[in-house]
Formats: sequence, structure tokens, C-alpha cells
Amino acid sequence: MTTLSTVEQQFLDIISKMKAYSEAVSLMQWDLRTGAPRKGAELRSEAIGKISSEVFKLSVSEEMGECLDQLESQFDSLDAPMKKMVKDARKEYNRSKLIPPTLYEEYVVLTSKAETIWEEAKDKGDFELFKPYLQNIIKMTQQFIDYWGVKDTRYDTLLDMYEPNLTTAQLDGIFGQLKDKLVPLVHEVQQSTNKPDASFLQEAYNIETQKDFSSYLLGEIGYDFEAGRLDESAHPFMIGLNTQDIRITTKYLENDVTSAVFSSLHEGGHALYEQNISPELARTSLATGTSMGIHESQSRLWENIVGRSREFWKRYYGELQRRYPEQLGNVDVEQFYCAINRVEPSLIRIEADEVTYNLHIIIRYELEKMLINDNLSVEELPEAWNSKYESYLGIRPSHDGEGVLQDVHWSFGGLGYFPSYSLGNMYGAQMMNKLRQEMPDVDAKIEAGDLLPIKDWFTEHVYQYGSLLTPAEIIEKMTGESLNPQYLVDYLTAKTKDIYKL
Amino acid sequence: MTTLSTVEQQFLDIISKMKAYSEAVSLMQWDLRTGAPRKGAELRSEAIGKISSEVFKLSVSEEMGECLDQLESQFDSLDAPMKKMVKDARKEYNRSKLIPPTLYEEYVVLTSKAETIWEEAKDKGDFELFKPYLQNIIKMTQQFIDYWGVKDTRYDTLLDMYEPNLTTAQLDGIFGQLKDKLVPLVHEVQQSTNKPDASFLQEAYNIETQKDFSSYLLGEIGYDFEAGRLDESAHPFMIGLNTQDIRITTKYLENDVTSAVFSSLHEGGHALYEQNISPELARTSLATGTSMGIHESQSRLWENIVGRSREFWKRYYGELQRRYPEQLGNVDVEQFYCAINRVEPSLIRIEADEVTYNLHIIIRYELEKMLINDNLSVEELPEAWNSKYESYLGIRPSHDGEGVLQDVHWSFGGLGYFPSYSLGNMYGAQMMNKLRQEMPDVDAKIEAGDLLPIKDWFTEHVYQYGSLLTPAEIIEKMTGESLNPQYLVDYLTAKTKDIYKL
Repeated sequence: MTTLSTVEQQFLDIISKMKAYSEAVSLMQWDLRTGAPRKGAELRSEAIGKISSEVFKLSVSEEMGECLDQLESQFDSLDAPMKKMVKDARKEYNRSKLIPPTLYEEYVVLTSKAETIWEEAKDKGDFELFKPYLQNIIKMTQQFIDYWGVKDTRYDTLLDMYEPNLTTAQLDGIFGQLKDKLVPLVHEVQQSTNKPDASFLQEAYNIETQKDFSSYLLGEIGYDFEAGRLDESAHPFMIGLNTQDIRITTKYLENDVTSAVFSSLHEGGHALYEQNISPELARTSLATGTSMGIHESQSRLWENIVGRSREFWKRYYGELQRRYPEQLGNVDVEQFYCAINRVEPSLIRIEADEVTYNLHIIIRYELEKMLINDNLSVEELPEAWNSKYESYLGIRPSHDGEGVLQDVHWSFGGLGYFPSYSLGNMYGAQMMNKLRQEMPDVDAKIEAGDLLPIKDWFTEHVYQYGSLLTPAEIIEKMTGESLNPQYLVDYLTAKTKDIYKL
Repeated sequence: MTTLSTVEQQFLDIISKMKAYSEAVSLMQWDLRTGAPRKGAELRSEAIGKISSEVFKLSVSEEMGECLDQLESQFDSLDAPMKKMVKDARKEYNRSKLIPPTLYEEYVVLTSKAETIWEEAKDKGDFELFKPYLQNIIKMTQQFIDYWGVKDTRYDTLLDMYEPNLTTAQLDGIFGQLKDKLVPLVHEVQQSTNKPDASFLQEAYNIETQKDFSSYLLGEIGYDFEAGRLDESAHPFMIGLNTQDIRITTKYLENDVTSAVFSSLHEGGHALYEQNISPELARTSLATGTSMGIHESQSRLWENIVGRSREFWKRYYGELQRRYPEQLGNVDVEQFYCAINRVEPSLIRIEADEVTYNLHIIIRYELEKMLINDNLSVEELPEAWNSKYESYLGIRPSHDGEGVLQDVHWSFGGLGYFPSYSLGNMYGAQMMNKLRQEMPDVDAKIEAGDLLPIKDWFTEHVYQYGSLLTPAEIIEKMTGESLNPQYLVDYLTAKTKDIYKL
């Protein structure tokens, strides 16, 4: 950056204070999920609440408003990072300022209560418990959208929060195309007599050895353990404290040797993104992923496109076999490859395979769009959920715990978030297609365990920018076209036909 | 507490915001010392600096000043905790307000630089490197004292920061008494032909087993692992995040089986204090130890008076022996007891035994008092240090790294802190004497591993109050007299004469 004016410096000072608080809050949350003592959690949550509310206050402070006004009056003379930071801060400032504070407080109370109730409802498979909360969440979300201003539809306003500038019209087309190709593909697989055996994955696998193997693979893909660490938690996650401290967690299951492998690679993909943001952005608000979709493109690419490829396991299966000679001694790499890539309609999103996963997302997208746009009532939701599962995946939940209640997102108000996961799959396939053109020997590299050039390529085209570029700018600058679902369809079709010999 | 007035609520709101920030800062520091990735440390330190400075700003804010003015105008009507909180906050407010901000910033820069330089100087044994920094630290400390107002002497002002209301005149008397008794005692021991063998403590002791044993002992003294955790760090410490999250660390040395045992008991003693503060004080500024001296009384009591007692090891030595049959199978409990209580003049304070430890402290007290009161120049300090070691302990450092440069305290400006350690020893012995009167079978209890009644007794008389009572109030309420060094002298004399058969 060039020499800063007084107002730029003032603006950066607010940002860096917000970043310091956010680093604190993130560490406090990481700690709660990895090893904080049980009894301290209540006071800890209070402290987190207080500091978070300071971050919010700073984002809508008078001082912030004045900085933004001044910076906008001289916008053309700002450099690119400053421009993007001002745009982002203005968006957040307006969003927050437009909501009456009492309404917002009501919403915070509602969602924090709803998360607890959701958990109980899910355990009991009892949608009635959660229903009034979800009804209120949707009502309040609609009110918020009306304050913010309705884009093409109310749902468009939500979508823009997670994937800036993406519209429902675009997504309808994209998801329509995906659904048209994937539903028949799943049916073909189901009709196939070819069923990969995967029972050997469920034997007893020593957990210390699993830890060692996860760490080893993370090192292989280029995760920097001097700028992060790997821990255990009930739900795996990646959390960025600062650009040089990007932590991941995973979960080890004794009777499932690949669960930790793929969740480590998934969170590792998120972490590669954040660890490789340009150091110049470290003290700015741009030192983060540009959207949830682009973030998921990296996690799901390393987990699936790289991490479930035949080449990857040609290189690393021996390492796994060596660690578990009893369990895997008689299983060859092709059997293993087919087992970890078997396609099987199932009820639970987070356990879904690469192909059906997208259908889980499309179902959620279609339903939440209807809920927000008043085309479906919460009353009708469970039935709508179940019949979509029946029609797209050919299976029907036996109770709402394994159906409409399975995901936490709606309980904290995260409507509009789900599409990010499939966007990630599509971005990832499109990016990989481009990488193949520029690095024709990429398969050979993977098979040789030479993975760092892949990380470096993504650093050049994605990671270094943090949120300096928009998702659309990233994909267009890299591939010369906008988001195109065909690459994902082609990738999944070819892979599935090969495995199932269709 | 009774129903709160508006200003009381406002005051508590500021306090609880400061507490939230402090919890964050403490966790960030704990993390840096226990497992944070190396590369993130620089950005982390910046974030800690920003949040710490917010805590400071709150403590001297206009809002705080107004609250204090109002609360003081109705002081008599406040309840006891509120009175003490107002007093403490006023003291801090005035202290901070009296220093010109530019001078304070200069001091922060100086001390943070000095700590780094001190480390280098210590490693090289080169006092000249550190000398200009120490000169400036002393000069600035004197300036601060002059702003705050000189008590009887300048050093008295410092002393009051760590041990409220204690004076140099008192301490001269107390330390004089201690020195008069302990110096001859040490000489007697040195002349004795009776030298306990301790070589067996230095064999190879498996570290995982040491961890297990430290955890076990902490459980025995009543440390609550659901309100804390035990980790490893280069220098053992206790840190309170909130009253239900009091963490400790220790350091395991393969060739020294008791190092971790006693540092765990030491930090565990600090932790028992903070874990047992009344829950009613949890959200107030009183939820902390009342002084460093009282804090050290608990750490050093559990480490030494309980933890190095014959009764303690009659109960627990079998547990240790069982874990290390090869190393300790032929060593009986009496040999072990004598080994861990051998008295030996040595150069390094933190490795000193119970008797000579106090002489290490007295030397530092005498020297820093002279430095602050302009009776000794920094130039003359190393020689003064060496000759005091020679006269009190009969040994002389071969270089300043094992002499005047050994402790970090002066480099961060912690002048006036050292006496706390010996105060802790004296408070502890005096408290133990009282406990013996009220619980005549305390030795039998220790020998039976029935330690919780001891913890409960200290909870009743010390822990529950946090900093609601002053150190003087605590010791007088409990024992009926003020701090009296005779109990420590008697305890150390009896124990040493027994072991050395003098």
C-alpha cells in the first residue's frame, strides 16, 4: 500500500481493533470446542458475548460511519485493497444500521434459544418442538430482508450475503442443470449390479495411528504446522485466528478409518486457503476467504477431487496399508478406491458421497427459497422435505431427526448458506479443469505425491487474494468464464461410470 | 448483593467488560505458552497489545471516573464487596491518571525491549548489555513513584503495589529477624557431616508416567479438573481465565523426577485459591487473589509445608515407587524425604531449597530497595550482588548469568515483587500453625491422604474471599495477630534439625 492519509489510517485502526477482538473470540471458541474445562463454559460464553458485541458496535460506530463517508468521497484515489475494504465495510455498516437494535436483540435471543431447542428436537425426532422457533426465525429473517431491501426476490437478498452477486435466477438454472444430470446418474448406479465392498473400512482402526496418518497427509498437501495445529473436536472445523495461525480439527472414529482422513483433508483445504493469503493483507479485513462458495471449493477439492482420486491413493494407499497391515493387507488399492467412492443415496447430508451430496443441497435450496418467498409454510415443511428425498434420492426418512431436523443451519438463522456447499463443488471442478490445461501432468504429479505445485497454483489464482477479489472475479480471471456447472457434471459422470462400469 | 443502583450497575458493566477482555488476553497468553503455532506469535502479540490497551483505557475512562465519584459520594451505603471494588478501582484509576500518557508509552516500549535484551544478556552472562535498560527502568520507576507520591521512602510506594499497606520499616524488621536465624542455620547444615543422598532423583524417569503422577497428586489436593486443566510449558505457571477455568502448567524433566511434582503442587496451590473464590464474586473485580504474598502463601504451602512433609510422602511415596520400581525400588521413604528436603546453598533462586530460598529473596529485597532509594547505582549492582551471596550463602557466582541476571522481574519493571515470595513462606507457616491448633490431627489426615479438609479450611479462611479482604485482614482474622516471621523460623529450624540431626 502507498502512504496512508489520516482517514485511511483511522479506518485501518478500527479494522485492526475489530480484528484483535475477533482473534480473541475465535480463540475462545476454538478453546471451548477443543479442551476448555466444562465448568468455565458459562462465564466464557458471557465473555464471548461481550467482546462480540464490541465488534458489532465498532462496525456501526459513528467513527466508522464518518470514515466511510470520507473515504467514499475520495474513492477513485484509493488503492484496490482500500476500495474493497471500504465497499465491504459499507455493506456491513448499512446492513446493521438498517435493523432496529431492539429487533436485532430479539433475534439474537431467539436464535441462541432455537439452537438449543433444535438439538433437543433433533435427538427426539420431534419437529413440533422446533416448529415455532423456525416460524419466528423465518418471519424475522423476512423482516430483516425488508429492511435491507428486497432484490429480485427476498431469497436473493440472503443469497448475496454468502455468495455476493449470485442471484436465484442464476442458481435455478445452475441447480436445474445439475439435477437433470445427477438424478438419472444416481438411478443408473442404483440399478447397477456392481456394488463396491466397503466393509473393510469399518474394522477396528487404532486411533493414534489415524492421528499420525491425518497429520502426515496434511503435511503432504502443504498444510504448515508452524502456522496452525490439528486438534480433535466433536464436529471438525477450520478456524483462522490470524493469517499465520490457521487451526483445524478433526474427529477420529475407531470403526471408520476414512472419516478422519477426509475431514482432515476437507478442513486442510480450507486452511490452505487462509494460510496462503498474501502477508500484505494480514492486518486488513481482506485476510479471509472471499465467499463461502470459494472456501468450500478448496475444502471439497482437496477432500474429493484430489483426495478421492485414484492417483492420490496410488501414492498414499501403501502408507495407509503399512499402518494397518491386518485390516488392509488383503485389500488392493483399486478395491479401496472403489470403496471410498461408492455412490449410495442416503438420508444424512454430511455422510453423503460426492454425487448425491449435491442433491441434498438442492433439496435444501428449493425448500428454503420457498419458505423465505412465502411459497411454503413451516407446517408443510417436513412433508415437502420427505417427498423431495423420495423423488430425488429414492429414499424417505423414517423420522424428522434423520430428515428435516438433521442440520443446525436454520436454527441459527443461516438461511441462504446451503447453496455454498454445491457452489464449492462446481467451482472446484471448473478450477480443476483449468489446472489440467495449465498443468497437463497433474495426475502424474498427484501419483508421485508431488502436491505442492497444486497448492502453489491455487495460491497464485485464489488464495493470495483473500477477499480482495469477488468470487466472480476469481473464477473469471482464472478460467475465462463464469460459474459453469458442466464441469462438475462431466467430472462426476466420468468418475462414476468408470467405477460402476456403466 | 442487594438491589443495585444505576451507577452501581454502570460500574459493574465496565468491570465486566474489563474482565471479558482480560479473560481473552489471558487465554491468548496461555495459548502462546502452551501450543500456539510459532509463526502466528507476532500477529498474536499485536492483538494482545490492542486488547490490553482497551482494558487500560477503560480503567481510566471518563465513565469510570464519574462512576467512582458518584459511588464515593454514597460510600457508606454501599455493601462490602462494592466498597472494596470502588477502593481498588480508585487506586488503579489514580495511579494511571497521575502518569503522563507519553511517559507511560515510553515505559511500555522500554520494558518490552528490555525483556528481550535481558534474555540475551542472561544467556551471554553479559551485564553490560542489560545495564542501560536497567538504569532507565529504575529512573522511570522513580519518576512514576514521584508522580504517585512517595510514601515513607520511594520503595514503600512499590511495596504497596504488591502487598498493600506493607512498609519497608516492617519488612526490614521481619527480614532482619529471618536472616538472623536462617544464616546460622545454613552454616550449621554446611558443617554437618550428614549429607542426604539425592542421586537417585536424577535417574531416567519416563515422562508420561510423570504426567500421570502429577495429575494424580493434583486430584488428591482437590484441584478440580472440570474447572481447569494441566498443560506443559517452558516455565510453569497458573492462570485464571474465569473462576471456573483456572489452568496450570508444569515442566517435566526426564532426569529429575521431583521437579514436575513440586511445580505442579506449587501451581496447584495457586489454583486451589482461585478455584475456590466464592461464586458470588465471579463477575466482579474481586475474583482474584488479594495479594501476591497471600497467593504465594498457598502455592508454597502446598508445595512445601504439605508437599515436602514426611506425612505426605508416607502416604504417596508408595504410589511413586510403584510407578518407578527400577529407580526407587531400593530407596525407602525416609531416604526420599531427606533427599527432597536437603539444604544446600546454591546460586539459582528457583532451584533453592526451603531454607535458603528466603535468603535469595532477602538479597534481592535489600538490593532493589537500595537501587530505588538511590543508595546503590546500577553500575555497582553486580558486585553488590556477588558479595551478598558470599556473605549470606557462602558462594559466589562465576558470572552474572548465574548471578544478578538470573531473574526476569527487573526487566519488565517488577521492582517490589520479590518480597512476595518470602511473605508467602511466612504467611504459610503462620497459617499452618493456626490450622494445627484447629485441626490437631492434621498430620494424621495428611498421612491418610485425607487432604480435602485442609483445602476446605483454607477455602473458609482465605480462598472464598478473593480480594474482598486485605492481606492484613486475612491473617489477623485467621490467626489473631499480624504477620509474624517466627512461625517460619520455628518450622524451618525444627524440620532442618530433624533431618540433619543437629
